[in-house]
Amino acid sequence: MKIVVVGATGTIGKAVVGKLTDAGHTIVTASRKGADVTLDMTSPESIRAMYEELGHIDALVVAAGAAYFGPLETMTPEQNQQSIDGKLKGQMNLVLLGLDYVNDGGSFTLVTGIMMDDPIKQGASAAMVNGGIRAFVKSAAIEMPRGIRINSVSPNVLEESWEKYKDFFVGFNPVPAEKVAQAFVKSVSGGQTGQNYEVY
Amino acid sequence: MKIVVVGATGTIGKAVVGKLTDAGHTIVTASRKGADVTLDMTSPESIRAMYEELGHIDALVVAAGAAYFGPLETMTPEQNQQSIDGKLKGQMNLVLLGLDYVNDGGSFTLVTGIMMDDPIKQGASAAMVNGGIRAFVKSAAIEMPRGIRINSVSPNVLEESWEKYKDFFVGFNPVPAEKVAQAFVKSVSGGQTGQNYEVY
Ligand SMILES: NC(=O)c1ccc[n+]([C@@H]2O[C@H](COP(=O)([O-])OP(=O)(O)OC[C@H]3O[C@@H](n4cnc5c(N)ncnc54)[C@H](OP(=O)(O)O)[C@@H]3O)[C@@H](O)[C@H]2O)c1
Ligand SMILES: NC(=O)c1ccc[n+]([C@@H]2O[C@H](COP(=O)([O-])OP(=O)(O)OC[C@H]3O[C@@H](n4cnc5c(N)ncnc54)[C@H](OP(=O)(O)O)[C@@H]3O)[C@@H](O)[C@H]2O)c1
Repeated sequence: MKIVVVGATGTIGKAVVGKLTDAGHTIVTASRKGADVTLDMTSPESIRAMYEELGHIDALVVAAGAAYFGPLETMTPEQNQQSIDGKLKGQMNLVLLGLDYVNDGGSFTLVTGIMMDDPIKQGASAAMVNGGIRAFVKSAAIEMPRGIRINSVSPNVLEESWEKYKDFFVGFNPVPAEKVAQAFVKSVSGGQTGQNYEVY
Repeated sequence: MKIVVVGATGTIGKAVVGKLTDAGHTIVTASRKGADVTLDMTSPESIRAMYEELGHIDALVVAAGAAYFGPLETMTPEQNQQSIDGKLKGQMNLVLLGLDYVNDGGSFTLVTGIMMDDPIKQGASAAMVNGGIRAFVKSAAIEMPRGIRINSVSPNVLEESWEKYKDFFVGFNPVPAEKVAQAFVKSVSGGQTGQNYEVY
């Protein structure tokens, strides 16, 4: 399969690329810097240009999306907008603008996160995005044309990100990126749709 | 209690106002036309002006918020934006900009909807908003200052809206607005926080 991995150079993305490559797929990496295709997912124009450049694909996987972290009491509409632009609209637009480019029986796999189910302080804006993507995936799945599937993966905090995030995730049990990557592989190669795979 | 009801003139809002008035509360209605306070919740400036005009309140209830309905295959980023501006950011900004105006022990009650749990065709954008609000509520609840609570109410399609929406909700069992209003009353007068009350 020809699979686009958005955020392929990131912590999760690298693990996903590794597993999908091992499985014999052809990977096209996409991100703002140092990837096969330059993409800024916050820009619909950039998304359109990517699909035009690539033509037909079998699957798109997203392992990217920036969300705002900060105390609820001081959060401004503008700060919340960072999450909406970065992780919510970015992922939704990759689906809305990409539908015509995905082959029959292909798939989209988006990314959410544990914070929507097990909230942490400073995480309300990011949790909103995760919950929004999960609900979009569940609903969009029933309308996908030509046997195209759509799922999301909801990772716990990663072992590889633990040093960076541990003060936010006190008491959490981090999971290895490899385990998270398996859920992406399941989404791409399995038969399910409308799922949010929890890797908690 | 002094309670602001956003969308008080609507199908759900009228029922909520009725129940809260019966319970002896002082209601301030807010919407774009024909309410005590003129409010366009899609505009942060309008939200700020409303809070400045009203001063301190005990509770804010939202029974408003427009979301886009339409087929996934033809949905554009711009159409999806209608849901983000109307129901997602509108409700979140009522919380973010209202925190300082809500008295100790007060509450926010937002509105979601069944489509995030039991999806319908043409509902993916609206489902996204509902899921986003539910996750925001759950997460924001753990950071609310001064004993302020936050919940959402997730109505099934209403009996009162059945004629208008029945072709979208085939096989659903509509619920009376009065039953939905009870969930708003529970949120305002009860002790729970971070809940999404399903009236299915
Ligand atoms: N790490 C965790 O513990 C964890 C846990 C749960 C959920 N998640 C979620 O998983 C996703 C990836 O997390 P991560 O930790 O792997 O991220 P990361 O290591 O920071 O990597 C992010 C990747 O996305 C790319 N990217 C960033 N902004 C982009 C944009 N606007 N357009 C296109 N590509 C962009 C980056 O490359 P460029 O900078 O070159 O664009 C990079 O390849 C995020 O949505 C995150 O919320 C992470
Ligand atoms: N009806 C249902 O079956 C059902 C089921 C599940 C969920 N819901 C949700 O419940 C909420 C209310 O639904 P409803 O059927 O009761 O709506 P409705 O009858 O159409 O009433 C909407 C109310 O909101 C006000 N409003 C609309 N846009 C506004 C804005 N930008 N700023 C401030 N106020 C605004 C309207 O007054 P003005 O026009 O004067 O502003 C009116 O008071 C919506 O979020 C809807 O998605 C409804």
